Formats: sequence, structure tokens, C-alpha cells
Amino acid sequence: MADTINLAEKLATFDQHWSPRTVALFNGHDVMVVKVQGEFNWHSHPDTDDFFLVLKGEIDIELRDRTVSLKAGEMFIVPKGVEHRPVAREEAHLLLIEPTGTPNTGDPATAAKRQTI
Amino acid sequence: MADTINLAEKLATFDQHWSPRTVALFNGHDVMVVKVQGEFNWHSHPDTDDFFLVLKGEIDIELRDRTVSLKAGEMFIVPKGVEHRPVAREEAHLLLIEPTGTPNTGDPATAAKRQTI
Repeated sequence: MADTINLAEKLATFDQHWSPRTVALFNGHDVMVVKVQGEFNWHSHPDTDDFFLVLKGEIDIELRDRTVSLKAGEMFIVPKGVEHRPVAREEAHLLLIEPTGTPNTGDPATAAKRQTI
Repeated sequence: MADTINLAEKLATFDQHWSPRTVALFNGHDVMVVKVQGEFNWHSHPDTDDFFLVLKGEIDIELRDRTVSLKAGEMFIVPKGVEHRPVAREEAHLLLIEPTGTPNTGDPATAAKRQTI
């Protein structure tokens, strides 16, 4: 059983953007931290909701009909199947939760390799 | 589809301790905020892991063999079936995630009624 998970300490161990690191497992999901900056790709996940909690900084989650803006301490769930594009003007740190094995880009061919820290 | 969820704003809407409020739904789970103070009961959840993220303050999660101490920005997953008792010396604010319908005390007879805010 893992012990206390300090999210800032986990985030301090890497610099790469858009490369989620798994910090815990929860009911078949990966709980991940990620550093983001710039624009991600438009994508959707047909079989899972997409959990975003901002730990530091600010992001926009662009949807096809509007944009949801989030700052530290704010969260948003993108329902399954809904196209979205995360955008961070400056570096932001996020907590993500997705079923283990979910490709972060929506496509296994382009997904970041999942790493546990 | 709900919009931005500001966790501090949600927490400011109630004062009751050990009474989780659902702020979002995620893959069959309730994402909840809760204010805690004092000792909860010893319990376990036979069918689900138990997700704790401290948003403000500090808590101890007592396990039968040791205690896991958490402060703001730290998280811990209690594996399913593992007995635990959350304790907060002073008021603390937590983010919890549990499958919708999970009794917070481990027992439907004593569980807090789940409320959505």
C-alpha cells in the first residue's frame, strides 16, 4: 500500500509537458499529475468521462460550443464522448483521473506512454 | 453539462462536518467535498477504494497498523476492504471520490444522506 502522496513533490520530479504521471490507482483508474503548456489536440474519449482539477495555474478547456476556464482549486468533468481541447497559456499543473489504459489524446497511436512515479 | 466547479466556493455553502456534498459525477462515482473535524468511525468499504485529497488543513487516516498523515495538497487511497478512521484535530476540507451510493460510514444505516450542491 502506498503512503502519503504529495502532489507538488510528484510534479517536481519531471518537466515534460502533456505527459501524465500516475501517482495512484483508484477503482481501475489512474490518478495522474501532469504539467501542461500550449494547446493540446482536439479529442474525445468514447468510454469515459475526463476529470480535470487544476492544482496550479490556469487552463481553458475548449468545447465545440464554448470554453470552460479553470484556475487552481477548480475542476471540470468532460462527459464521455464530448470533444475537447485543453489549452494553457502558461504552464499549469493538473490532477487527472482516467480509467487505466485510456489514451490521453483519445488515440492509442499518439498517446503519451503512461508512467508511474 | 455543469460548468466550472470551484471547490472553495462549494465548501463555503455549508458548515456541517462529516456530511459530504456531491459536486460532480464521474464514471459512476460521486466527486464530493466535505468538512471534517474530530474523529470519524472505524469502517471499511468492501467494494471500493476510498479516495482522499486534502484541500485545506490536515488529517490523519488511522489504519489498524499505522497512521497516514495528510496536509493540503496530499492524497491517499485507502484500498477496498481496509479498515480506516479519519481524524482531524482542527477543521479540514477534503475532496472525496466514491462510487455513487457508497455509505460514508461503511454502513447504510448510519451513513450521511448524500446531497448535491
